[in-house]
Amino acid sequence: MIRTYIADNEPRFLEELFSLIRIPSVSSDSNRKSDMLRCAERWKELLLSAGVDRAEIMPSAGHPLVYAEKIIDPQAKTVLIYGHYDVMPAEPLELWKSAPFEPEVRDGHIFARGADDDKGQSFIQAKAFEFLVRHNLLRHNVKFILEGEEEIGSPSLESFLEANKSLLQSDIILVSDTSMLSKDLPSLTTGLRGIAYWEVEVTGPNHDLHSGHFGGAVANPIIVLSEMLAKMIDERGRVTIPGFYDDVEELSPEERAMIASIPFDEDAYRKALDVEELRGEEGYSTIERNSCRPAFDVCGIWGGYTGEGAKTVLPSKAFAKVSTRLVPHQDYNKIAQQFCDYFQSLAPKSVKVEVRFLHGGHGYVCPIDLPAYRAAERGFEKAFGRRPLAVRRGGSIPIIADFERVLGQKTILMGFGLESNAIHSPNENMPLDLFRKGIEAVAEFHIAFDELVK
Amino acid sequence: MIRTYIADNEPRFLEELFSLIRIPSVSSDSNRKSDMLRCAERWKELLLSAGVDRAEIMPSAGHPLVYAEKIIDPQAKTVLIYGHYDVMPAEPLELWKSAPFEPEVRDGHIFARGADDDKGQSFIQAKAFEFLVRHNLLRHNVKFILEGEEEIGSPSLESFLEANKSLLQSDIILVSDTSMLSKDLPSLTTGLRGIAYWEVEVTGPNHDLHSGHFGGAVANPIIVLSEMLAKMIDERGRVTIPGFYDDVEELSPEERAMIASIPFDEDAYRKALDVEELRGEEGYSTIERNSCRPAFDVCGIWGGYTGEGAKTVLPSKAFAKVSTRLVPHQDYNKIAQQFCDYFQSLAPKSVKVEVRFLHGGHGYVCPIDLPAYRAAERGFEKAFGRRPLAVRRGGSIPIIADFERVLGQKTILMGFGLESNAIHSPNENMPLDLFRKGIEAVAEFHIAFDELVK
Repeated sequence: MIRTYIADNEPRFLEELFSLIRIPSVSSDSNRKSDMLRCAERWKELLLSAGVDRAEIMPSAGHPLVYAEKIIDPQAKTVLIYGHYDVMPAEPLELWKSAPFEPEVRDGHIFARGADDDKGQSFIQAKAFEFLVRHNLLRHNVKFILEGEEEIGSPSLESFLEANKSLLQSDIILVSDTSMLSKDLPSLTTGLRGIAYWEVEVTGPNHDLHSGHFGGAVANPIIVLSEMLAKMIDERGRVTIPGFYDDVEELSPEERAMIASIPFDEDAYRKALDVEELRGEEGYSTIERNSCRPAFDVCGIWGGYTGEGAKTVLPSKAFAKVSTRLVPHQDYNKIAQQFCDYFQSLAPKSVKVEVRFLHGGHGYVCPIDLPAYRAAERGFEKAFGRRPLAVRRGGSIPIIADFERVLGQKTILMGFGLESNAIHSPNENMPLDLFRKGIEAVAEFHIAFDELVK
Repeated sequence: MIRTYIADNEPRFLEELFSLIRIPSVSSDSNRKSDMLRCAERWKELLLSAGVDRAEIMPSAGHPLVYAEKIIDPQAKTVLIYGHYDVMPAEPLELWKSAPFEPEVRDGHIFARGADDDKGQSFIQAKAFEFLVRHNLLRHNVKFILEGEEEIGSPSLESFLEANKSLLQSDIILVSDTSMLSKDLPSLTTGLRGIAYWEVEVTGPNHDLHSGHFGGAVANPIIVLSEMLAKMIDERGRVTIPGFYDDVEELSPEERAMIASIPFDEDAYRKALDVEELRGEEGYSTIERNSCRPAFDVCGIWGGYTGEGAKTVLPSKAFAKVSTRLVPHQDYNKIAQQFCDYFQSLAPKSVKVEVRFLHGGHGYVCPIDLPAYRAAERGFEKAFGRRPLAVRRGGSIPIIADFERVLGQKTILMGFGLESNAIHSPNENMPLDLFRKGIEAVAEFHIAFDELVK
């Protein structure tokens, strides 16, 4: 029945999704405030038409949130669905094959910024809900909360949760914002990494200098920044921040064995990225490195002359955006301070260094014996024909840990993305096949939830 | 007489100079081709009105050159004056107190891109010539050649010189494109550093990745580039390129003593740059480091996300613009290859590295017993009231070495800049006082030249 419903309604589903995608809701861009509001309003309309009793746009310290609910019975269980309507910047634009905010279906994929992360995936939740409502299959309450600041670290969400605890009261939280191992290997995410993100600024001389007149006598801030960044990872691939590994939970032999059993073709992974060699922490496999171990990355760097041709300048400043991915038990607040102290300590007296902590979030682990987790397994099994693997992933959804702490509930991460969906990259996409199976899996989750969660 | 002439004509001089400055002749910007031509044409007009017999715009492989001459007598000696009409980009624009291409006089200084380098200084040459012509004091031939590619390394000049050897035949070459030790310490530049300039590109994965999904498992090209750049200078402040110092002429004890005698307040220098410590090659003084010793600088760096806010990306590429300043006897072609080989050798297998050599130029030394050099000394003495010091400078005018090799003549570097003129930087300026003294010094050079050079 659900499959027929999806097939019959697909043209409408796509038109609705595309209407969301066409609004460039880039949360990090301060020029996009009106687009953010437009996108929230469009979500409100779509949730109302999907069957909620009530939907509203709620202000926060930053971009507004969309709240919606369908209350079947105040005494019934409640599923709180979280998603986000903001997207990453689309740059570099020249690498997109079609315009990032003009969705296009090619070869069975929807191509657009947000096609997966997270407009596409949140929309899957909305359409599964719509199916249940229209067929009178919903036996529990459903609440939706869609925020507009996930891609900038959800700075306003925690206080929003604190202020709206009773409104957001639930028995489980459901999120579609993660990916599966592969198209044919459905998986549920049971762990996420935390994050801490900083911008650093290294100042040498107080103005740009002629590199001929000063070069050799005055510290070059780009070279100093390079030296400092080069010190952040040692020869064994370990982050050098003192105390960084103190709270890292080492993987048990059992968990390592389970990870080793996940089908993974390292050669294909390497070739897909077109790199001759991978690189990471000594003593850990690639999957361990990108999901269960902490990591240090430089997300951006700039300074001096970056235009066409050659300008001989000894610049005044150099900047970098740096981040660490953290594992459960690492406290991002503690890491934030440790990095700040350490990075300052690396600075020679020939420069001044500023470290600005931009945002952070804790990691998360979900126990696989939770009844709601088993309902999610059943949903995947119905849609994909096989039981999903339980895997820890390397990405961060810092607010999942906030949900647990503030709202007191665990989160089930029913994500339908693929690594090839290129989220945060040019040509982000969502295979239509997964879009359909996602709606089916979520609908089946709700049905199984009523049976398994008493 | 010359001082009266300068005072009487100053308003006109400034109007003429400003008409050159207002044309944004940024040679590195391919969108500025028509401005380049407009600037060359304006120079032609101004040289004709200053008194040359003939002026024309001559094509080259790149931006055109302006050639002009006044032939008093084919048998007489000839002074060839070189300058350049192109300027550096004005970025970062927000740091300018007045618009870079709208010259403004404030506190006795002309503020504008090109006020010194090299529109202001070349214009000094033109006005000294004008004075001599109008007062019938010129006893030798004068030729002018103004190029439009100095700031991008004069890629077309060498073949232009080769093709126009007889047209450019002279007995000495005169250039105003350098600076003095200070306002009260006139000096003539007797040495220049060479240069080699590259752009490097480090590619990790073939597209930008989500740093959560891949961070820790895939080499980050910004970190790899930082590590490679950090290896370029060792703990003693020496460039690590193998063979880099092979041809470096060590300073003689006599020359070091002369350099040590130059009045130099290191504390004031440090404070003017607002740095707590200077940094450079162990065992050498600041003046030696920035003028007589080779140096390695990174002029620009970029990669990944550099916009507002936080984007969690593991970028595909990182870039840097790097340069070395070379001393006489270091061959930039050899260094170009040495750097390329060495930088490639530093690359781990997890990335691909491309090195693009952008341009290079040889260093230069002028003997201080040359009669034309003594004429220049006399010019300075008349204008500034004291004999100029002979100093080597850290900047590069690669074509000075080309002049010697192709045209067979030494160059006298009569520069009237100051370090505080901020060339290549925001708020470039020229003190009016030096502008006036420059015209006087050049006019007196020509008069002394007739006496000293037989």
